Amino acid sequence: RSALRSPARLALGSFALVILLFAGLLSLPFATADGHRAPFIDALFTATSAVCVTGLTTVDTGTYWSGWGLAIIATGIKVGGLGIMTLASLIGLAVSRRLGLTQRLLAAGEARASGLGDLRSLLRTVLVVSFSVEIAIALILIPRFLTLDYGWGRSIGYSVFYGVSAFNNAGFSPDPVGLYPYSHDFWILVPLGLGVLVGALGYPVYLNLVRNWRRPRTWSLHTRLTLVMVGALMVISAVLLAIFEWSNPATLGAHSTADTIGNIFFQSINQRSGGFASFDIGDAREQTWLLEDVLMFIGGGSGSTAGGIRVTTVAVLLLAIMAEARGRRDMEAFGKRVGTEVLRGAVAVTMIGIAIIVVGTTVFMAQTDIPLDRSLYEVISAYATCGLTTGITSDLPDDAKITLIVMMYVGRVGSMTIAAALALNKQRRVIRYPSERPLIG
Amino acid sequence: RSALRSPARLALGSFALVILLFAGLLSLPFATADGHRAPFIDALFTATSAVCVTGLTTVDTGTYWSGWGLAIIATGIKVGGLGIMTLASLIGLAVSRRLGLTQRLLAAGEARASGLGDLRSLLRTVLVVSFSVEIAIALILIPRFLTLDYGWGRSIGYSVFYGVSAFNNAGFSPDPVGLYPYSHDFWILVPLGLGVLVGALGYPVYLNLVRNWRRPRTWSLHTRLTLVMVGALMVISAVLLAIFEWSNPATLGAHSTADTIGNIFFQSINQRSGGFASFDIGDAREQTWLLEDVLMFIGGGSGSTAGGIRVTTVAVLLLAIMAEARGRRDMEAFGKRVGTEVLRGAVAVTMIGIAIIVVGTTVFMAQTDIPLDRSLYEVISAYATCGLTTGITSDLPDDAKITLIVMMYVGRVGSMTIAAALALNKQRRVIRYPSERPLIG
Ligand SMILES: [K+]
Ligand SMILES: [K+]
Repeated sequence: RSALRSPARLALGSFALVILLFAGLLSLPFATADGHRAPFIDALFTATSAVCVTGLTTVDTGTYWSGWGLAIIATGIKVGGLGIMTLASLIGLAVSRRLGLTQRLLAAGEARASGLGDLRSLLRTVLVVSFSVEIAIALILIPRFLTLDYGWGRSIGYSVFYGVSAFNNAGFSPDPVGLYPYSHDFWILVPLGLGVLVGALGYPVYLNLVRNWRRPRTWSLHTRLTLVMVGALMVISAVLLAIFEWSNPATLGAHSTADTIGNIFFQSINQRSGGFASFDIGDAREQTWLLEDVLMFIGGGSGSTAGGIRVTTVAVLLLAIMAEARGRRDMEAFGKRVGTEVLRGAVAVTMIGIAIIVVGTTVFMAQTDIPLDRSLYEVISAYATCGLTTGITSDLPDDAKITLIVMMYVGRVGSMTIAAALALNKQRRVIRYPSERPLIG
Repeated sequence: RSALRSPARLALGSFALVILLFAGLLSLPFATADGHRAPFIDALFTATSAVCVTGLTTVDTGTYWSGWGLAIIATGIKVGGLGIMTLASLIGLAVSRRLGLTQRLLAAGEARASGLGDLRSLLRTVLVVSFSVEIAIALILIPRFLTLDYGWGRSIGYSVFYGVSAFNNAGFSPDPVGLYPYSHDFWILVPLGLGVLVGALGYPVYLNLVRNWRRPRTWSLHTRLTLVMVGALMVISAVLLAIFEWSNPATLGAHSTADTIGNIFFQSINQRSGGFASFDIGDAREQTWLLEDVLMFIGGGSGSTAGGIRVTTVAVLLLAIMAEARGRRDMEAFGKRVGTEVLRGAVAVTMIGIAIIVVGTTVFMAQTDIPLDRSLYEVISAYATCGLTTGITSDLPDDAKITLIVMMYVGRVGSMTIAAALALNKQRRVIRYPSERPLIG
């Protein structure tokens, strides 16, 4: 059992070490644009944000750090993103094997259907998909930056940075003012949006898509639920964003119709986890913040660099509600039954997430006196490693920065660990108590 | 099946009719202190708040309404409270019978253990407990109001009003400035607090306590979970309130230590559903509002006049998390097993509640431009029929008042109906799909 739990402990320890390493690198004088040593709290914050692929920043990435600093941040994102996906793969494999050993008779074909078989082909898929998408994004962006007269060095550097940042859902931008100048530039927004979208799907989906692209009928339940949820959430959030922000001159109201629609979809993709912003969220309406609070909390796909409680967790909760409403014995989707033990896991992940966010927001508000709207947005953004902000991150006191660092670390590594522990820790008991039904609701 | 569902439809229709009736009565000129006809929106709001035992008010109860108006409000509270408890009893009985018919073999002794047997003794218990507690509170308060020189008429009127308002968790006060003048007066706070506490337990607990007061071992799982949760939430909220507000001169900071502790416990009891406030919530810190958001949402006991998703619903979610963490096959408490179908119901009630509050808050913020902190507090207070407010209710535009009216009605009748529908609507299917396990978290 200790061997099965080791991926979780490995995640906790290795992420802490890697974060400290990158904080050390960012503390070196040549990492900043003006050659001064960055305050350790800002170096630690930026390193945590990079390695946990969050994207929140206490200093302006494009102006504060030197070219070396940007390279360190991009490396941190790449190392963090790979670490997340490979550890998630390891955990997934451990779960799959464990199920194979003890539950083969109960759930025949489960491990096979989920497409997890051997470690090497799994890691190969993760590496091939991530590098391919990152390089593809960079190759599309380089000519665009050249036409904007950025010169070869900066064009290549920015393009690689954006490729890594997009696929890993990191939300960091090397541009001094972020993506705002490109809000009319679909040559840049489209590849970034697609990169974020693909990056948020997760390795179990890549395995299905890479191996059985032309045979959707063979796709696993996990792949189908992920794709349906990602699509549905994108459409729902686009419609609601249009309702809330179309008439807001500070955000989308100033654009042409085509640009507004483009920015709405870019934001719809990014608000669950990507973290790129093509307009200033701080100027958006309160309704938009609340909508994005919910979407950030839901997050992306399991086994991806996206954060949140994951779309399949929410799908399982929805299946439970649908089964209740229809009075069915089983939770069902796409001709498959979802066991009640999965629902229990989903409840645990969701409720622990809500509890951490409530506690984190309470501490954050006590430290900063910032009202609930912006505090909740910031804390959820950190916990769900989304990286969008209403613009308060750079003015925070140090203790509030530490709160966000903890939220980023817990949101990233903690939820992996919890999910792993929940999935692996299955005891069997012989004695069962008599059943009794409390009233609810 | 239609007969089994009728309590739910009965609740929906009868509550709407009773609300309209009391709105009509409050629209009569003699209902207001100055003899003018109250605007219908305020009459409707007050009637909804009274019949749904919420306690939110758009006008100051103590100064706006005449003695007749107060009598109408108290009658509305009593009718609403009795309606809730008897309908909840009917639904509980229907569930119990339905289970008795189809699941006797699966869960032998369940209906017996929950203490629901025949309708008459059940309704008798509800009537006896409610009138006894209300009269007891009134008898304790009358001498106190006499010593405060309120005169016999007002002393009796106020005492009866407070008795009804306390037991039914209505939170209405006949005093012109509410309970603030009594924040040092334990002769008034203690009976009101105890009345709210008892009123929030619910009829299944009364049945156990009335029949088997001296034999706690025979109490049902529902009674035990309710009592443990109510006690635990009271202690937790008292500790957190002390941490957040002890140093706030606008709320508890000005009191003596004894008064502060008394007010903390009074608030701890009332913030889940009672709705009485001995200090101005509008002056409390943001952390306190967020804490109370959570506690109001949790609410009181099933089959009581308290609102929220109910403490046993949260208990079931906690049991699921504990079972997951320990890797147990079953959710267990007090030597009993809780079936997974109960967890599914708890998930449905909780998630539907969260969804309604998010939608309601979004609409409310669009209508009022009030920030998230106060908007969320107000909407949760309406949905959970708690009645506490940060002080914005009286200045709302009419469309936002309608939003709150809908939230009160849906929060009160809707959740009963949903719970009934979920509990009754159990089909059996012969075909089961093959099981497949999506990844979560
Ligand atoms: K991110
Ligand atoms: K109330």
